[in-house]
Amino acid sequence: MPAKKQRPRRKSASKSKVYDMALIQRGARLRRSPFFDSTLKAGCKSYTVYNHTFLPSYYDDPVTEYWHLLKHVALWDVAVERNVEIRGPDGLDFMQLLTPRDLEKCRVGQGKYVLITDDAGGILNDPVLLRLEENRFWIALADSDILLWAKGVARGSGLDVTISEPDASPLQVQGPKSKALMADLFGEKVTALPYYFFTPTELDGIPVLVTRTGWTAEVGYELYLLDASRGEDLWNAVMKAGKPYNIRPTGPSDIRRIEAGILNYGADMTMENNPYEVDLGRLVDLDKSSDFIGRAALQRIKDEGPKRKLAGIEISGEPIGFNMTKWPVERRGRPIGRVTSAIYSPRLKKNIGYAIVPSEHADLGNELIVLHPDGPRTAVIVKKPFIDPGKEIPKS
Amino acid sequence: MPAKKQRPRRKSASKSKVYDMALIQRGARLRRSPFFDSTLKAGCKSYTVYNHTFLPSYYDDPVTEYWHLLKHVALWDVAVERNVEIRGPDGLDFMQLLTPRDLEKCRVGQGKYVLITDDAGGILNDPVLLRLEENRFWIALADSDILLWAKGVARGSGLDVTISEPDASPLQVQGPKSKALMADLFGEKVTALPYYFFTPTELDGIPVLVTRTGWTAEVGYELYLLDASRGEDLWNAVMKAGKPYNIRPTGPSDIRRIEAGILNYGADMTMENNPYEVDLGRLVDLDKSSDFIGRAALQRIKDEGPKRKLAGIEISGEPIGFNMTKWPVERRGRPIGRVTSAIYSPRLKKNIGYAIVPSEHADLGNELIVLHPDGPRTAVIVKKPFIDPGKEIPKS
Repeated sequence: MPAKKQRPRRKSASKSKVYDMALIQRGARLRRSPFFDSTLKAGCKSYTVYNHTFLPSYYDDPVTEYWHLLKHVALWDVAVERNVEIRGPDGLDFMQLLTPRDLEKCRVGQGKYVLITDDAGGILNDPVLLRLEENRFWIALADSDILLWAKGVARGSGLDVTISEPDASPLQVQGPKSKALMADLFGEKVTALPYYFFTPTELDGIPVLVTRTGWTAEVGYELYLLDASRGEDLWNAVMKAGKPYNIRPTGPSDIRRIEAGILNYGADMTMENNPYEVDLGRLVDLDKSSDFIGRAALQRIKDEGPKRKLAGIEISGEPIGFNMTKWPVERRGRPIGRVTSAIYSPRLKKNIGYAIVPSEHADLGNELIVLHPDGPRTAVIVKKPFIDPGKEIPKS
Repeated sequence: MPAKKQRPRRKSASKSKVYDMALIQRGARLRRSPFFDSTLKAGCKSYTVYNHTFLPSYYDDPVTEYWHLLKHVALWDVAVERNVEIRGPDGLDFMQLLTPRDLEKCRVGQGKYVLITDDAGGILNDPVLLRLEENRFWIALADSDILLWAKGVARGSGLDVTISEPDASPLQVQGPKSKALMADLFGEKVTALPYYFFTPTELDGIPVLVTRTGWTAEVGYELYLLDASRGEDLWNAVMKAGKPYNIRPTGPSDIRRIEAGILNYGADMTMENNPYEVDLGRLVDLDKSSDFIGRAALQRIKDEGPKRKLAGIEISGEPIGFNMTKWPVERRGRPIGRVTSAIYSPRLKKNIGYAIVPSEHADLGNELIVLHPDGPRTAVIVKKPFIDPGKEIPKS
């Protein structure tokens, strides 16, 4: 199917020298991360809003930032992942209530990617959970007020817990050279961490907690700053130590996360979706001994099979820009679903993404029509992830 | 105290012809209002994010928009005020549980400005509530996920309620000519509405609910669109009918709302504030017969007196731009609080705003120092509101 050649949408933004905050903010309603001033000084060209807080989107062309992440090391202010702390005598029981994942399998010092579900099995959030103590947890949130959900649930739960927002602001350090940088900064204490484990440590007297996690499927770490007044100090220390590794600040790499099959809450899943339809059934332990919110609904959905599926898709034609709306999807002339994320992968030289469609239309190889704003395009359902994390991949 | 002359911050933005959505958005994570395309076509120059949804900030210089609101009629897309519906056999009891205001005093067909508080008496939101039926309510939210709070609280409450987000998208029509416009569109059914009352009606077959409410202290209405697919139709119908009244789309007028003493959730109050310290004690009915969340804490705070107060302030010197951060406030050389909102009022020819300070420093007439980004300025504590709604005011 023919398609018009697209110009990248953010060209004009990339050219501007100084970001005018009035373009996104009026007044002091929104929150600033402890790294905010550093991101401005570093030339951040655009911010979005996430958990009522500014999230740097990009400093340079996203394709340039993508290649940098694949080859070097990228620094990303992700303090918008506000944490919620669950603690108290019933901390474990309450955390078990909040998530379908069985936390008996999570040791102190270990993290897990978890879902927070409601009574209908709908996904309210998909945080990274850290088990700090037997009965003390942090969950680093996607964009929804789980602080309010957890406080509301706790009221009538009969469990003895305290729920709060701790002083913890994650900074992602991702890319193949991140391990050498961590070695220079923290030594083996950090580089020996298995995937999803973490350790408290410090850098020049700045308290941090380092996790072996990230949103890139590259080797990477998150540094949780534990003293919001030291944001600039931590940023500068990491930038300085990263110089030999060609570190640079970037935004999130949507190209890389889509290649890896990683989902973005709000786009690829919302409260309207259950874990089974977005291929996250592995995060639901229906047989766990403690009760959890959504169990009955999730058992039923599993038994019946999900009605929809989030399928991987390849979209034909010229390189597309990142989808800014959920493009309609048709099959055999009928509307059946929506594209949730789509982007051009410079490595695969393909347009890739996800579409949510009825399960009966979700077979691999099925042909779809995507109603791109510039005209319809054929698409085909393919396997996710588009690039296996384990596979040797040409880097340029 | 001398102060540098300030240039308005948003000049460069106002000059740009087309708003580049990539400046605030990457991907389809954020929601669009049913009026979004209309606001883009109408030349909206800037959006912010509110309840995960784009909120138009301005189409022209905010001072121009302010004078327009005072003299004519302004149309503001405020569909970001997402509604939560509470309904079911125990709808009234549950709504009473959520708010300190006594809803026995709210008739069906009537609305109320209410607070949602947590167990510590902290303010979680300040919505406009509509009582649709004996046991059915909508609350039009400020920027926090009260849908999650309400669902969480309902779980353990033992009350029989259903909580959801209805298809309801408010559009504000505000200004002295709004009443004549409402008369043309809907007749006396709407123009006879007392303040805070509402009525369901329709316009060219588009279902709407019209309320006598607003965020301006001018005469004004909100049209709740009840069918999200008809956003453009409603927008066009109102714009067409408003032509004789010189209607134009604008953003929220922060100048006007600060003059009127109206608070902005997230800036002037957060979960950290209780109603008494932000002068909203009138929304707390401690003697109401039904129980509500926060009662014990609020009783204690009232008995002891609030420790802090949100004071009205006038800031000396040249006209200031809208504060983008919460500027520090000092008294007698010591840091004591923060400016939460501050702006230049072209009518009063003064810099006005609010500062949260310890109660012992909050007396009228007290002198403060505001640490403006361009240098310190003297300020004085004054009465709020800065302009009484009832007072005859020169309009230019």
